Amino acid sequence: MSASEPAVRKPKPDRPNNWGRWGEEDERGALNLINRDVVLRAGGSITSGRVYSLGIPIQAHDVPLMAYRGTPMRLTLQDSTDHGTYAPELGCHDGTGSHEDVLVMASHTTSHMDALIHVYGEYQHYNGVDHQAMQATAGATRLGIDKVGGFATRAVLLDMVAFFGEHEEWMLPGHCITANDLESAAVRQGAEIRPGDVVLVRTGYLRFWQDHRDEFAQPGIGADAARWLASKDVVAVGSDNAAVEVVPFDGGDFLGVHKILLVDHGIYLLEFLDLDGPAADGNYEGLLAVAPLKVTGATGSPVNPVFIT
Amino acid sequence: MSASEPAVRKPKPDRPNNWGRWGEEDERGALNLINRDVVLRAGGSITSGRVYSLGIPIQAHDVPLMAYRGTPMRLTLQDSTDHGTYAPELGCHDGTGSHEDVLVMASHTTSHMDALIHVYGEYQHYNGVDHQAMQATAGATRLGIDKVGGFATRAVLLDMVAFFGEHEEWMLPGHCITANDLESAAVRQGAEIRPGDVVLVRTGYLRFWQDHRDEFAQPGIGADAARWLASKDVVAVGSDNAAVEVVPFDGGDFLGVHKILLVDHGIYLLEFLDLDGPAADGNYEGLLAVAPLKVTGATGSPVNPVFIT
Amino acid sequence: MSASEPAVRKPKPDRPNNWGRWGEEDERGALNLINRDVVLRAGGSITSGRVYSLGIPIQAHDVPLMAYRGTPMRLTLQDSTDHGTYAPELGCHDGTGSHEDVLVMASHTTSHMDALIHVYGEYQHYNGVDHQAMQATAGATRLGIDKVGGFATRAVLLDMVAFFGEHEEWMLPGHCITANDLESAAVRQGAEIRPGDVVLVRTGYLRFWQDHRDEFAQPGIGADAARWLASKDVVAVGSDNAAVEVVPFDGGDFLGVHKILLVDHGIYLLEFLDLDGPAADGNYEGLLAVAPLKVTGATGSPVNPVFIT
Amino acid sequence: MSASEPAVRKPKPDRPNNWGRWGEEDERGALNLINRDVVLRAGGSITSGRVYSLGIPIQAHDVPLMAYRGTPMRLTLQDSTDHGTYAPELGCHDGTGSHEDVLVMASHTTSHMDALIHVYGEYQHYNGVDHQAMQATAGATRLGIDKVGGFATRAVLLDMVAFFGEHEEWMLPGHCITANDLESAAVRQGAEIRPGDVVLVRTGYLRFWQDHRDEFAQPGIGADAARWLASKDVVAVGSDNAAVEVVPFDGGDFLGVHKILLVDHGIYLLEFLDLDGPAADGNYEGLLAVAPLKVTGATGSPVNPVFIT
Repeated sequence: MSASEPAVRKPKPDRPNNWGRWGEEDERGALNLINRDVVLRAGGSITSGRVYSLGIPIQAHDVPLMAYRGTPMRLTLQDSTDHGTYAPELGCHDGTGSHEDVLVMASHTTSHMDALIHVYGEYQHYNGVDHQAMQATAGATRLGIDKVGGFATRAVLLDMVAFFGEHEEWMLPGHCITANDLESAAVRQGAEIRPGDVVLVRTGYLRFWQDHRDEFAQPGIGADAARWLASKDVVAVGSDNAAVEVVPFDGGDFLGVHKILLVDHGIYLLEFLDLDGPAADGNYEGLLAVAPLKVTGATGSPVNPVFIT
Repeated sequence: MSASEPAVRKPKPDRPNNWGRWGEEDERGALNLINRDVVLRAGGSITSGRVYSLGIPIQAHDVPLMAYRGTPMRLTLQDSTDHGTYAPELGCHDGTGSHEDVLVMASHTTSHMDALIHVYGEYQHYNGVDHQAMQATAGATRLGIDKVGGFATRAVLLDMVAFFGEHEEWMLPGHCITANDLESAAVRQGAEIRPGDVVLVRTGYLRFWQDHRDEFAQPGIGADAARWLASKDVVAVGSDNAAVEVVPFDGGDFLGVHKILLVDHGIYLLEFLDLDGPAADGNYEGLLAVAPLKVTGATGSPVNPVFIT
Repeated sequence: MSASEPAVRKPKPDRPNNWGRWGEEDERGALNLINRDVVLRAGGSITSGRVYSLGIPIQAHDVPLMAYRGTPMRLTLQDSTDHGTYAPELGCHDGTGSHEDVLVMASHTTSHMDALIHVYGEYQHYNGVDHQAMQATAGATRLGIDKVGGFATRAVLLDMVAFFGEHEEWMLPGHCITANDLESAAVRQGAEIRPGDVVLVRTGYLRFWQDHRDEFAQPGIGADAARWLASKDVVAVGSDNAAVEVVPFDGGDFLGVHKILLVDHGIYLLEFLDLDGPAADGNYEGLLAVAPLKVTGATGSPVNPVFIT
Repeated sequence: MSASEPAVRKPKPDRPNNWGRWGEEDERGALNLINRDVVLRAGGSITSGRVYSLGIPIQAHDVPLMAYRGTPMRLTLQDSTDHGTYAPELGCHDGTGSHEDVLVMASHTTSHMDALIHVYGEYQHYNGVDHQAMQATAGATRLGIDKVGGFATRAVLLDMVAFFGEHEEWMLPGHCITANDLESAAVRQGAEIRPGDVVLVRTGYLRFWQDHRDEFAQPGIGADAARWLASKDVVAVGSDNAAVEVVPFDGGDFLGVHKILLVDHGIYLLEFLDLDGPAADGNYEGLLAVAPLKVTGATGSPVNPVFIT
């Protein structure tokens, strides 16, 4: 695409979608569903006073990493070998100093949030944005993670490990969660999914991974579950697995759930979340604060969502 | 320090401190002040339904950066030039693809949180941890940002720009905020600082910086303000400036406020926060969720705190 | 370009070129001109026993850097704070240890070599390779720096500062060097350009830059000089400026000299070389060894050419 | 070490060494042995006209990497998705563009050169430099790779695989090469080691590694071989293994050969060199050009030595 020829906006997909719902130029998608009432209701869902940090560690070992994303590195920028190099004219006392690092990591390392620019189908992103809106030098010129800010809303955790009970700690790899499964689990937990919610789907994958590090398959939601969640007007879907969606892909459609959620509906994905703590405590509802780094032009961000129940 | 000879714990400082208050081996400091009652009270402080993202952008230009920390980079890992490289055996449709990045940035880039390992005085960190607990390869073996997790508590914003009124948009560089100033501002705002709170101090520095990029001095709190905040049992102090504390340093003591807060009391610092939004709306109280990345061994983390008022 | 549809090879340009000269699949271009006779002749050109390292420092300051390439960083991987962490079972004596770094830098940082994949014109690289042979994840699938290896050949330094004498230390910015200028300078120096040679063009730019860091223009060769060099069957052209070619570009053609050399002829470029030493000593001929890093898929490499006269 | 208290220079070791030989402040060690006669002699050793690039690829897979050094990354800075973003005012024609990368890699990645600051023993480096001359922020304040420049001298390849003949392609892991072995191999090859030479020791390790990637042990030289090489006044020792020296370490002394060569004698090490080409051709002597990147303060550099026989 030359800078001088604007991308022609393609027609809306002929399936349920949110394109144009919040304006032709909208770049925030389902985040538009969060209004002051939703936030106040989220505040009201805090009843136990327990806070869960849903991020898993960012480190080079013992966490699931994908080889093409490289190995996250924490490198030392300042340590005690720099002692004595601070200018005494600034009043630096002997024995005073500081420690700092530089971080090198993929934006989709361990626990992370996908921006709407992350995946495209039929060469298009959410709201008809052409896939060439991502440029190597500038990064995401539209739909980047910098359009998200931080957000807070109500979240409901659906513990599908408990629901299926097929293994004490995890769902079987390749097990495809359906809309009916999610609905039934919600009913059993007495939870109601409301517009503006985040739904957190626990599959036990992070526990499974500990002992099956070479297994490619994973449990996750399928296409009709994604459509059902979209019909409920959720803002984001989080899971403890690598891709929210089941692998091998439902219907053999590569990134099919990503396309339904991100592309068709502007609904965000949160991956590799540690959902064990609230599940163990039976704390299924609360306020979820998600704070992606505001990296200009990035396609996602590592996150450490805070779940306050 | 050889691995075989354990560091001798030095005596507690002969000034107010929290060493030993939560155990000799404690690595979380003032975060211990957040209990279920504090969280429930924070939830109760959500009254407007407004959510503010306090992080400023992470980018190479037009944000305050310190040269020794390098320039943050977002580099492209995947874009549309990779189109067609996805294995068709995974069911990849023509026109489907994804976009990803790699991030390179200092852990103390733009809006960030200092871990307790960040600063030492008299060769010691909080709770008597030797400054050699930071190692180049391993990073922080104690008191690292990975000990924080994410947290949520009540926050009170003190708008010192409005309090002093010396300039419409900012406090003057070098203006040292005292304990009395903070206390008076709190009274004027009708705010009460309680144990477990975060206090956010607005100086207008980020606005000042836009037009004075080479100015070294900045407004910020001084030593007695730091001691007063510590006496109030706050968990963290945030500000819109580079160091929370006034520069030139109060009393000519390099990093003096860092040493009172981080070292003596285990109280965290949040720097380069954008506090303009809630100040403009007069929303001074709410729940603050802070979610540093769980980078094992890091001395801090970029953050994008979410303030829900 | 989908992986399944091979790029259609476009017709050769209707101007002098080396496409097809060394086979339709050739990826090394003018390096094919170096044969054993050329190398032996280069060895014979060593007469003074002086060795010059032509690279300039790689560091964050006081060297010409382009902002979009980021700031090069040397970060500490190991230092004396790691002392004592080596496993004593490996026989590590007290007092023994090692120091290491991690480097982060653009492949075209300071003194560097352009691979043939670096620049394209009419969407094509040397030998008709489509510009989509560069992919974000894989990098250069053809014509990358990894196709170069290290090479050695005879080099001739043309000191254009001395030739023009318009300023004691540098040529004026924007001064376009012509074929006639190069030829006359060679005659005056008594130098003959032969097939397989590298020609090093000294403009004094690195000295000029020290005092004119914001100046965009630079002296360098123009289009007919590039064509003349190509007609001489040189392997590479090096210079002490940022782009070998004059800026503003000769004839207003963005990267025009790059296109004549890299694209049309498969002739390599070496930029930001320090040519002051051999020029000061009057050592204009010798063996030049150029050793780009063998980074798979890279578009260039920092280099530190060794000129043995 | 405080900046104000200069390190006390410790006494010279009571074993053969080069401390003080080239001055108390010398930072180049055995490189001082290369004079014009040595270079001219090296030029005279070029007899076959063959050029060998001794570096192995820098990539994330299929090359020996050490986990603590991270995985080398080539990341895309510019590709064809940036097409059209060049300012037309610079004369950018449609279809013209460029490709660039950013590199992230350890300074001791794959084929590399150790600077004299790399290893210390008894808390000291070559010439009595204290181990605290390496600082996290500044890097090597003395003895860094930036003190090397590029160099060229005569090199002699000793093919110990052929000498021992214990396996067609490699020496056995843990096989310690003695001074007598090196001397006998030189005699059998008709090679003479002279002051100022580089000696290249081929063990076949890179071939062995291909099929034994988890093997820790490797063949290499032992302590008396190192002392013998030092007595011959060599400038550097290169090998195809990870550490030049045998592992497990000779005499159980961790990095013992590094200490004899780097620390005691200021002799450099070149590791992970591909020596198969010249060995296969029987080209054992020639001029070796080594061009470490001039990264200010680095402890080593990836290299791609050029061997011209």
